[in-house]
Amino acid sequence: MTTSELLEKLKATTGEVIDLRAAVSVLHWDQEVFMPPKGGPARGRQLATLSAIAHRMFTAEETGELLNRLEERADELRNDDRILVRETRHDYDKATKVPADFVERFTQEQSKAYEAWTRARRDSDFAAFQPHLETIVELLRQKAEYLGYAESPYDALLDEYERDMTASQVRSVFTPLAAEQSEMIARIGATGPMPTPAWLEQDFDEAAQLAFTEQVLRDMGYDFDAGRQDKSVHPFTINFDMHDVRVTTRVDPRDPFSALTGSIHEGGHALYEQGFAAGDQRTVLAEAISLGIHESQSRMWENMIGRSLPFWRHYHAAFLAAHAPRLDGCAPDDLYRAVNRVAPSLIRVEADECTYNLHVVLCFEIETALIEGTLKVADVPEAWNAKMKQYLGLDVPDDAHGCLQDIHWSHGSMGYFPTYALGNLYAAQLFEKIEADLPALWEDVAVGHFAPLLGWLRANVHQIGRRMLPAQLIEHVTGRAPEAQPYLDYLRNKYGALYGVPL
Amino acid sequence: MTTSELLEKLKATTGEVIDLRAAVSVLHWDQEVFMPPKGGPARGRQLATLSAIAHRMFTAEETGELLNRLEERADELRNDDRILVRETRHDYDKATKVPADFVERFTQEQSKAYEAWTRARRDSDFAAFQPHLETIVELLRQKAEYLGYAESPYDALLDEYERDMTASQVRSVFTPLAAEQSEMIARIGATGPMPTPAWLEQDFDEAAQLAFTEQVLRDMGYDFDAGRQDKSVHPFTINFDMHDVRVTTRVDPRDPFSALTGSIHEGGHALYEQGFAAGDQRTVLAEAISLGIHESQSRMWENMIGRSLPFWRHYHAAFLAAHAPRLDGCAPDDLYRAVNRVAPSLIRVEADECTYNLHVVLCFEIETALIEGTLKVADVPEAWNAKMKQYLGLDVPDDAHGCLQDIHWSHGSMGYFPTYALGNLYAAQLFEKIEADLPALWEDVAVGHFAPLLGWLRANVHQIGRRMLPAQLIEHVTGRAPEAQPYLDYLRNKYGALYGVPL
Repeated sequence: MTTSELLEKLKATTGEVIDLRAAVSVLHWDQEVFMPPKGGPARGRQLATLSAIAHRMFTAEETGELLNRLEERADELRNDDRILVRETRHDYDKATKVPADFVERFTQEQSKAYEAWTRARRDSDFAAFQPHLETIVELLRQKAEYLGYAESPYDALLDEYERDMTASQVRSVFTPLAAEQSEMIARIGATGPMPTPAWLEQDFDEAAQLAFTEQVLRDMGYDFDAGRQDKSVHPFTINFDMHDVRVTTRVDPRDPFSALTGSIHEGGHALYEQGFAAGDQRTVLAEAISLGIHESQSRMWENMIGRSLPFWRHYHAAFLAAHAPRLDGCAPDDLYRAVNRVAPSLIRVEADECTYNLHVVLCFEIETALIEGTLKVADVPEAWNAKMKQYLGLDVPDDAHGCLQDIHWSHGSMGYFPTYALGNLYAAQLFEKIEADLPALWEDVAVGHFAPLLGWLRANVHQIGRRMLPAQLIEHVTGRAPEAQPYLDYLRNKYGALYGVPL
Repeated sequence: MTTSELLEKLKATTGEVIDLRAAVSVLHWDQEVFMPPKGGPARGRQLATLSAIAHRMFTAEETGELLNRLEERADELRNDDRILVRETRHDYDKATKVPADFVERFTQEQSKAYEAWTRARRDSDFAAFQPHLETIVELLRQKAEYLGYAESPYDALLDEYERDMTASQVRSVFTPLAAEQSEMIARIGATGPMPTPAWLEQDFDEAAQLAFTEQVLRDMGYDFDAGRQDKSVHPFTINFDMHDVRVTTRVDPRDPFSALTGSIHEGGHALYEQGFAAGDQRTVLAEAISLGIHESQSRMWENMIGRSLPFWRHYHAAFLAAHAPRLDGCAPDDLYRAVNRVAPSLIRVEADECTYNLHVVLCFEIETALIEGTLKVADVPEAWNAKMKQYLGLDVPDDAHGCLQDIHWSHGSMGYFPTYALGNLYAAQLFEKIEADLPALWEDVAVGHFAPLLGWLRANVHQIGRRMLPAQLIEHVTGRAPEAQPYLDYLRNKYGALYGVPL
């Protein structure tokens, strides 16, 4: 076979696998959004069958042989095709290095751990979850051995979510970050609590909330001809193709900002996935390079844009009209303050911009210690509570509001948490460059004109797909390795002004 | 391998194929109901890939070998397992007798023919469709040779939709049926046209229409925990499992009966699929035995129940309330008359109970003549128009309202049409037995109590799945081979009374 025939063959095989995975995504989407309750068991079987077939097809020896032969002829390949081979190799090794019987055992333990966790969280009973978490940690350490690593077994796990990143790199960024953010919230806390405005203490119409989220999504550049928004218990973004990227949101009648910020967040994810290069369609290049980069897109739109004063200057009138007469008398600044209240809290997913990363650092420190063997599972609650006191100044009343709050560990996911905070840092670092490149940015935002921002993101992030690794991408675009300073500067400027205190 | 191991292996393979086909159905459903417009091309690829994988897995030599070995040991099998092997063999032969390169060519010609037909129908230009229909007929004749038949090549095609039925059997039923129904409508026509009541000439609220269809579906016994109703351009029923059977409907604001009768019709299909035996799940036994039997369920609920006077006595008040004040003053009898107006028309899908079969007989006669070589494609319009005059007394103004109206031929489907009329006949024959077995039937319907009827259908039709062939099922249940007399009697009684004329 000629090189180009080999390449076509690789694309045909991976194309079928991509089609199957897209079908899996459609089945998942339907399950979360529209499936009737009794459809669950059959849907579980269908998902298992499709996933198994996709895995079988992708990990077939033939795929490995095609990769070997193409790697031998790497110098004959165009640059994009070389990257295609590199990325397919990465996925192939990930999928084949771990033996099938281990995967099966892992899946079984996962589902037991998940069951145990849901009960343990409900009862705030860590002891009931402990043996399962011990098994999960043991299996993850084993998995790291299969996958291989240079320094810490955690690196092998982290690489699944944030390519080529290591525990020590993350640590060197997170440790000073936590110290600085912790001090910052102490200063903000010293100004006394920000009172909840009276107009927030009422119910807000669901249809009006949803219509408003759709207007904002449309303005952001989300293409409703290549996607749709529905409701689900937990908001998410899912794509079946770059021309069919769907988002979900949830509406809280007591909070007019919950659906909105959720939709903007998912919209940021969705713009990334609608923005891959058209020529990359049905190849691994039309995929997010990492969860951290993905999160940088959602967080940038949600926080840097959606929680900015210019944004609220623009949407103030429409938002008031949607919720008239409930918001009569609110000024843009009132809305801006309301979406930016800082208050240390026990639950990560409810945390504000100033405290969010501290939750993540806490999770990261505990899970690295578990994987590196310096912390016993039995000591997790104590470690969690101590860090919660240290970073956020809070006492944890029970484990349901502490180390049992998140689903991730019960799913066997460690290495996932850091990507949330990395997303914030990437977002700020990219945004610094965006503000430099687009001097009219805030004037544009103040009139709801997001096309220049989206254009910048398309060119500098979305269209890259998997061509660059995360750190490479950040350095390529900003000229500097990933760092925490831009995010800290962003927080200092924004919240220093909001709270009238030097941070 | 032991017999039971062979059987387990066959069930495992076909189970995976069933899961894949269910995924294909989810993708189709989403495409018709919720997919954003730009999602089409990727969805087409995903459907093609999944269908190809399902076909590849099912037609693997291993399946054939398993069937051979199980057939050799048929006497060791339980009855249900013997049927499972018989039905899997039927599907396997259908799937393997036709060579892959032929299937590929057929698919290509199909999609060209479909494109040409949509344009030809729009322009009412049969000549533009003619060469494509010629190719389709040629390919269908070829396909019949691959599949094999005893008498007419049409038999091979018909068997795909109505198992074990032959052209000559259908002809011997249809020919007298057409004569009798044709005479009947002439007599009805002689009574003069039934005027459209003034209250029908207004708009009816969409939400009220939909809510009413849901109430009726729920009353019929359709399980909304194992299904849902959405809107689509063409109403349909689709199942991903017997516990997830979905229906769609469409709402015409000018016609308060269109969504309702559509929903009841699809509800009849859905009750069949929700009613397969639980133990048959994920096997070929939990499938409809034929389109004719499927249609008997939808037609029975739509016409014999949904267009009956007791039905309207019960729903009269709720229907008036849903559409108040639009229907004020309508009596149950007014509604009953309105849903049962007889008027020969050019379009099959809009035909009433008295004229519908005549459209089907016409299509059947033309397509058998094409396949048997006694009619040239070029002569189809002339033949169509002559039969339309003969059976319905109508002059066809153009081919868009004549032989170009239906999609079926452009899709390469011949042998499908007769199942529509067979459904009517089966329905009436089964219903005669139901009325005998359930003396309180009409009292029950008159209070919206459908459980006894549904219970009868569950026990006598739904739970059978693919255990009996269509004619076998009808004979088993009614004691007589399929026949037209019960349907003719039903029409004579109902419409003779409605129009006050002996039929």
